[in-house]
Amino acid sequence: MVRIERDSLGEREIPDDVYWGINTARAVENFYISRRQINVYPDLIVAFAQVKQAAARANRDIGVLDRERADLIDRAAQDIIDGELHDQFIVGVIQGGAGTSTNMNFNEVIANRALELAGRPLGDYDYISPNDHVNRSQSTNDTYPTAVKLSLVYAMGRLTQEMRLLRNSFAAKGREFKDVLKVGRTQLQDAVPMTVGQEFRGFSTTLGEDIDRIEDVLPLLQEMNLGATAIGTGITAPEGYARSVIRHLRVITGHPDLHNGPDLIEATSDTGVFISASSVMKRAAMKLSKICNDLRLLSSGPQAGLGELNLPAVQAGSSIMPGKVNPVIPEAVNQVAFVIAGADLTVSFAAEAGQLQLNAFEPVIAHVLLQNSTWLRRSVRTLRINCVDGITVNGDRLEQQVSTSVGVVTALMPRLGYLHASQIAKEALRSGRSIRDLVLAEGKLTEQEIDDALDPADLSGGLFDTGRLPAMTPELIAQMEEQLDAADRRDQA
Amino acid sequence: MVRIERDSLGEREIPDDVYWGINTARAVENFYISRRQINVYPDLIVAFAQVKQAAARANRDIGVLDRERADLIDRAAQDIIDGELHDQFIVGVIQGGAGTSTNMNFNEVIANRALELAGRPLGDYDYISPNDHVNRSQSTNDTYPTAVKLSLVYAMGRLTQEMRLLRNSFAAKGREFKDVLKVGRTQLQDAVPMTVGQEFRGFSTTLGEDIDRIEDVLPLLQEMNLGATAIGTGITAPEGYARSVIRHLRVITGHPDLHNGPDLIEATSDTGVFISASSVMKRAAMKLSKICNDLRLLSSGPQAGLGELNLPAVQAGSSIMPGKVNPVIPEAVNQVAFVIAGADLTVSFAAEAGQLQLNAFEPVIAHVLLQNSTWLRRSVRTLRINCVDGITVNGDRLEQQVSTSVGVVTALMPRLGYLHASQIAKEALRSGRSIRDLVLAEGKLTEQEIDDALDPADLSGGLFDTGRLPAMTPELIAQMEEQLDAADRRDQA
Amino acid sequence: MVRIERDSLGEREIPDDVYWGINTARAVENFYISRRQINVYPDLIVAFAQVKQAAARANRDIGVLDRERADLIDRAAQDIIDGELHDQFIVGVIQGGAGTSTNMNFNEVIANRALELAGRPLGDYDYISPNDHVNRSQSTNDTYPTAVKLSLVYAMGRLTQEMRLLRNSFAAKGREFKDVLKVGRTQLQDAVPMTVGQEFRGFSTTLGEDIDRIEDVLPLLQEMNLGATAIGTGITAPEGYARSVIRHLRVITGHPDLHNGPDLIEATSDTGVFISASSVMKRAAMKLSKICNDLRLLSSGPQAGLGELNLPAVQAGSSIMPGKVNPVIPEAVNQVAFVIAGADLTVSFAAEAGQLQLNAFEPVIAHVLLQNSTWLRRSVRTLRINCVDGITVNGDRLEQQVSTSVGVVTALMPRLGYLHASQIAKEALRSGRSIRDLVLAEGKLTEQEIDDALDPADLSGGLFDTGRLPAMTPELIAQMEEQLDAADRRDQA
Amino acid sequence: MVRIERDSLGEREIPDDVYWGINTARAVENFYISRRQINVYPDLIVAFAQVKQAAARANRDIGVLDRERADLIDRAAQDIIDGELHDQFIVGVIQGGAGTSTNMNFNEVIANRALELAGRPLGDYDYISPNDHVNRSQSTNDTYPTAVKLSLVYAMGRLTQEMRLLRNSFAAKGREFKDVLKVGRTQLQDAVPMTVGQEFRGFSTTLGEDIDRIEDVLPLLQEMNLGATAIGTGITAPEGYARSVIRHLRVITGHPDLHNGPDLIEATSDTGVFISASSVMKRAAMKLSKICNDLRLLSSGPQAGLGELNLPAVQAGSSIMPGKVNPVIPEAVNQVAFVIAGADLTVSFAAEAGQLQLNAFEPVIAHVLLQNSTWLRRSVRTLRINCVDGITVNGDRLEQQVSTSVGVVTALMPRLGYLHASQIAKEALRSGRSIRDLVLAEGKLTEQEIDDALDPADLSGGLFDTGRLPAMTPELIAQMEEQLDAADRRDQA
Repeated sequence: MVRIERDSLGEREIPDDVYWGINTARAVENFYISRRQINVYPDLIVAFAQVKQAAARANRDIGVLDRERADLIDRAAQDIIDGELHDQFIVGVIQGGAGTSTNMNFNEVIANRALELAGRPLGDYDYISPNDHVNRSQSTNDTYPTAVKLSLVYAMGRLTQEMRLLRNSFAAKGREFKDVLKVGRTQLQDAVPMTVGQEFRGFSTTLGEDIDRIEDVLPLLQEMNLGATAIGTGITAPEGYARSVIRHLRVITGHPDLHNGPDLIEATSDTGVFISASSVMKRAAMKLSKICNDLRLLSSGPQAGLGELNLPAVQAGSSIMPGKVNPVIPEAVNQVAFVIAGADLTVSFAAEAGQLQLNAFEPVIAHVLLQNSTWLRRSVRTLRINCVDGITVNGDRLEQQVSTSVGVVTALMPRLGYLHASQIAKEALRSGRSIRDLVLAEGKLTEQEIDDALDPADLSGGLFDTGRLPAMTPELIAQMEEQLDAADRRDQA
Repeated sequence: MVRIERDSLGEREIPDDVYWGINTARAVENFYISRRQINVYPDLIVAFAQVKQAAARANRDIGVLDRERADLIDRAAQDIIDGELHDQFIVGVIQGGAGTSTNMNFNEVIANRALELAGRPLGDYDYISPNDHVNRSQSTNDTYPTAVKLSLVYAMGRLTQEMRLLRNSFAAKGREFKDVLKVGRTQLQDAVPMTVGQEFRGFSTTLGEDIDRIEDVLPLLQEMNLGATAIGTGITAPEGYARSVIRHLRVITGHPDLHNGPDLIEATSDTGVFISASSVMKRAAMKLSKICNDLRLLSSGPQAGLGELNLPAVQAGSSIMPGKVNPVIPEAVNQVAFVIAGADLTVSFAAEAGQLQLNAFEPVIAHVLLQNSTWLRRSVRTLRINCVDGITVNGDRLEQQVSTSVGVVTALMPRLGYLHASQIAKEALRSGRSIRDLVLAEGKLTEQEIDDALDPADLSGGLFDTGRLPAMTPELIAQMEEQLDAADRRDQA
Repeated sequence: MVRIERDSLGEREIPDDVYWGINTARAVENFYISRRQINVYPDLIVAFAQVKQAAARANRDIGVLDRERADLIDRAAQDIIDGELHDQFIVGVIQGGAGTSTNMNFNEVIANRALELAGRPLGDYDYISPNDHVNRSQSTNDTYPTAVKLSLVYAMGRLTQEMRLLRNSFAAKGREFKDVLKVGRTQLQDAVPMTVGQEFRGFSTTLGEDIDRIEDVLPLLQEMNLGATAIGTGITAPEGYARSVIRHLRVITGHPDLHNGPDLIEATSDTGVFISASSVMKRAAMKLSKICNDLRLLSSGPQAGLGELNLPAVQAGSSIMPGKVNPVIPEAVNQVAFVIAGADLTVSFAAEAGQLQLNAFEPVIAHVLLQNSTWLRRSVRTLRINCVDGITVNGDRLEQQVSTSVGVVTALMPRLGYLHASQIAKEALRSGRSIRDLVLAEGKLTEQEIDDALDPADLSGGLFDTGRLPAMTPELIAQMEEQLDAADRRDQA
Repeated sequence: MVRIERDSLGEREIPDDVYWGINTARAVENFYISRRQINVYPDLIVAFAQVKQAAARANRDIGVLDRERADLIDRAAQDIIDGELHDQFIVGVIQGGAGTSTNMNFNEVIANRALELAGRPLGDYDYISPNDHVNRSQSTNDTYPTAVKLSLVYAMGRLTQEMRLLRNSFAAKGREFKDVLKVGRTQLQDAVPMTVGQEFRGFSTTLGEDIDRIEDVLPLLQEMNLGATAIGTGITAPEGYARSVIRHLRVITGHPDLHNGPDLIEATSDTGVFISASSVMKRAAMKLSKICNDLRLLSSGPQAGLGELNLPAVQAGSSIMPGKVNPVIPEAVNQVAFVIAGADLTVSFAAEAGQLQLNAFEPVIAHVLLQNSTWLRRSVRTLRINCVDGITVNGDRLEQQVSTSVGVVTALMPRLGYLHASQIAKEALRSGRSIRDLVLAEGKLTEQEIDDALDPADLSGGLFDTGRLPAMTPELIAQMEEQLDAADRRDQA
């Protein structure tokens, strides 16, 4: 029922039906900190297997691995890429050793799967050794950062897709509410007229910019350090390996822009790109949190609040107050944003703590960034489906507010002068009389001049260009959703 | 196979073999953000069940719940306290609604278990209603914060126990190395002599202070707001309920100091105590990280590093560099510290974001604080068992360093004057001659005077008082470990 | 016009009318990072001078400094304590060297002032040497942390005084508005009735708790490490010095509880107390920010907002919108809170980065904590004087809201059952009919029963106990303000 | 001696020799929180004056301001651009009101200077009014964010220049040490050989990437919202104004790529670009801190440390330990990095807290980002001049370490197999025998094969391509320094 494996520390019994080996077993015992195994992040599992597969092919091509073993390793890696054996990746997301335990877990599982494919017993490492064959020409210090970056390309790519769908929903609401006037507010105080459509279009625009910022980082994440091995000098990696492994990895992943950095010494210890990846997700999270704050504020009430918007009721709001409906979806998104802000700090600490030729703290960076991208993606989705798509406006209340608003005096400021206009505004608030009446009573401007200047629709500007945000077709939305769903089902984070 | 439940939004089918109901079902659908259910925190599940049990007893005592229903609810809560039904608490750790979904999940599971105990079908809410009976005299806004605080009392209490064991280990090493001289360092530059024992005793002392700070917060966490209901005015909570429920909760939990805050309006929205709880865990984490940095630094080498300490080898260090052994355990602890620093920020954001009569963001606070306390506790443990207890010193190297150290010139500074002593130190470094020889050659001090002044053992001070840190007995250690293990096995965080 | 000074690096010209010397000059050149000199913090200048004075007295008592020199040093330190020579403390707040430059700056200024008092030329260090006499029995590593902690005792003490005045103002508003009913809100949605007085009393209570937390830390800040010298072993500090210097410092400062820590090795590198000091200020800041958010929200409008409160107009709100008045004071306080949250992180980073026997990063900790306490104190003051004391309520609007609020249905929930009450609430919102009418129409409850249950004054609870927060007398307020003003005038932070 | 000014709140006396007016006076009284006036940031003062100048020209061109007044305003603004009147910008860096007080301060100073240029008395606002003429077609909400962004373009631009000089210094050291072999380290444990040149080149490369990231943000900072006025709808801004003001601003600033954002509603409240600006400075700071940690570590000693590098001695290191020299410059840089990490959090809080059509918290964002860029720039400079340029290596010690290092066994791993190589490494460490001897003794490899494989120079790789980092000429360095110095002299932050 067990096989005996040994490493430089001694021997250990390993259950003979598992693909992982002695190094994995020791890591599980050493790092019992989180009850979360690295397989909660299938993107990482797949990306790492792709790196191993590319390495096997490169080793074969340059002649340091015979074709038979290379192909067995290749097939074993492919099984993992295809979704098999993920339950064998059991080391914890919090681990010391700069990812060595994760790499060892891969080397062992792939070696044993390859042995199985060869019809040999698990643990027959004389034939295929985790370190000598699977890990050939590699180090944790080049494969691990490469796989983490690749997994972020996948995960953050899906995040931007989900953000696109939400952006489309905001744009659709922008078009839907393009003629609904409201009182704009600065510093929570009544300002001047605008449309609800402009407000939602603004949400759409801002989300678009955050998508752009995330996409700025994706190319940076495609800079690898394969062939660098231990510290960037390429020790044990034969001539030609680096070029070959990158070429294979491009084909395997379908990402033709993958490339090695120009300075492999630097690339081996550098975690700058993770700071950047964290920053753009934090930016998106902070902005999304601001939007959710606005949605909660604008839907406050129903009686003693602003009451401009109605968010869809998705669950009973209170265990004690009957009929209460709360903005639970935006609240959940706010909380994810707070988690992401915290995670960004974790990344800063971990990045700053790197020493000399390596940063030993990449596992926690990988954990928080992969969790971030998953949680943020799902937040964006529930916000779209369970909230934004169902928002309606209280047109009557808005119309009444615009019609009595004192803020329109601003439009007369150029003619009346700032100080005089201030006095009229004060008087309007004090007396309850309208700006129009007060100005008219002064007799300096004609009724026509006043009405021309104060038309709220005109005041809201002609800025809302519905042409700028082409609507996605329902078919495209459905297709994107299906792809995102399929990926999400695997993800246990 | 299903039962129909309804709420104010409509009807829904619920599998008829589950104890949760329609509110739980809606919450699961709305908050599919994290794949972590609240039952990863058994402390929270038990604490909440205790609150529900206390409420049932109080409602019975003050006459708003008949004895029969009260006893059924009481027994159902007891089952949960005893560890049953935890798989029924399925709402996500990230949820909007200020904990309402968690409270609803409890109301439903307890109602249905109570119905089952009464021999009635699940869903027979006319007999026992989640809201009208289980939740009687309560609101999410008083039960949820109370249960979260109580769960932190449990979790942080265990954390301090584990910290005590590590403190004991550091103290033991302090005693073990009390005669081993070394060169103390400030700003990474050689300073003056000390003992390795003093260094480890310092770790022990500092950990003791962090335990004290955590224990300062535990009484603050025992301030509840039961009977406050929705916003602190006590609406729906009858006269006498608050006093009764607290009294019952003291008995149920064995914590006689539980009490209500003096201002229930304030207590309902206040999250200050969570900031405090987070701060003390962050303090402990930062200090522990500093200690781990020191351990990694002092064990650097084996050839080209400081090489003062040897950390036990717990796994092969590298997939490529044969024989390399890395300080993987301290590295893992560092990473947990970085997570906790990030979580502290999450708590700050969530606390600041509270509005008016409630803070809607307590669920994320509960999540990060409960995760923190668990991860920190396990980190402390692996640090003790897999690292500190097995540390040895390289006595020869240390002795050689002390014997040639130029830093001892400091001891002569009062006699030679600062500037002159500086010149001697420079000359010693330049020439490789010893301070002793150089000063002797000057002829101002006798050999005896110099030797008296420069005795390193003397210079390290008589400060190490082994009496201050009484050693724990092996029996006590074993007993504490057993209790901590039993609790940890339940914990899926 | 210049004198020549020298150190171990060589010689330098120093203007002969300044009290600082060569070490200060070098530090100014090395650390030209901030244009802020340490004398922006007079608390630190005074505290450091007190430490130097206590040291001179102790050195005299134990016989390592002759009476004449000791008295000259004593008098020079007293001049600084009295507010003179502060312009001589010119090293930057951002400095490397763990505070050495600050200590050297003190040693030099005191030495030269002492020389001047002795009628000798500045720079005559053979008579009184900065290092050999002023710094006798001391190191930067014990005097600097001690002075920083002492300065925080002063600065944070004044902060709590200012917080007491604000707490009193909130309590006064609580009394003023104790009969003004309003609709309480949870998650920004209308909940159940309460009074404006309860809301302000809550602000008062919460501020009181934050004062308590800050005061919990003050005793921890009184733990010193004098006599520890370089690394805690006490090298160069003669027998009896530590006891004597602490005794003198108690007398000089008027703080009888000053004491040395139990483990001077640990105390020398430990920065835990600074994390604690930062945490309690952050807690106060986050809570104050929440209160300011509430004040801004409750005063939103004047027409299209909640419009419950009126904050005093303290300046024109807009350069373009005439008559607009903005909540500028709470906004300023929010921003200080954000600075303090950031500073807390700076402290965490600096504390974690300590290595081995010292933390080299205490200068930045001192900078941010002293700035925090000053900015927070002034924020609290402007919030009180320019905002809270002048707040009024819009009673009519509030009364109207309470009278039509649907939330009162909660009071009938125990009688009607949760689900049925939910339907009534929905119907009331839909139809615009009152809860009272709808329930009456059902005929299950009598008019009297309904009116008894729905009385809003009753629903707001009898919880507001005006006796709990005794008002400060105007005389006491004036006296406290005067003292705080006097201190603030010196403070250039 | 005074003039009377009035605003909507009433009248006030203003000293008649100051250019600021009543709004400035009120702001100074309201925001006495920091004793730092906005004129500590000359970049902001100049940028704001440029915006005012461009606005005056645009107002003239489109005909809403007569040529005479426009020219007076233009000349007044030019005086400020030329460095005059900066002492008149006295509102505090911490201010409520979204920058309104800063804008008012500008409107008043420019109006009064324009009046003076016209030979009229200060305060003669009927002729030139701060609001009606200077602020024509503008709002705080468009001019303030624009000026802040522009000032960051200036400040961050100088930061990258300073970083270029440091990068050049690192590259020069990379060339200088290109033949010095050393033992590379991962996780602080000895790994495999490399050169000191590679290490410094890595610092150079990494700094280059951080420069690139900062420069990625500069174009984003050139997106303005001029003409948006209060909330983005352009109220009071006449047709043609927006296009004209941007065109003038391009000419005035010499930045031809300045442009308005596509959605002015969004642009008015959006603070995303500030998060990005903060993120890239944080990234640079964290990386620089890592480099400083390495420099401190590699220069630890001189006897009991790693002792690889010698940092120049720039000041006496200790007040008590004679001759001690500390890495004070890197320590100062570390502390600036910690401040910047904290500031990044301040920006996140402030950005997230924006509400509806405006973010009221931009003043604190401006404060921390401008302070960051200044402090970081000066840190980079002192690091270069006072540290990096003077670094030397301890070649003997390094050579000795490389020659005995066990890590070279890695090079034999492909031939010996991982497990066998591990045993040899262990044996080498245990016995003190060299890897070469042990492998030779086994007889499996020839002496030649072993020596070929173990040549350290070869093992360090041929990766160091000196051609990649062309050295700056001394002339260019001098010229850049002169420009940076000139700018720095003005800067009081």
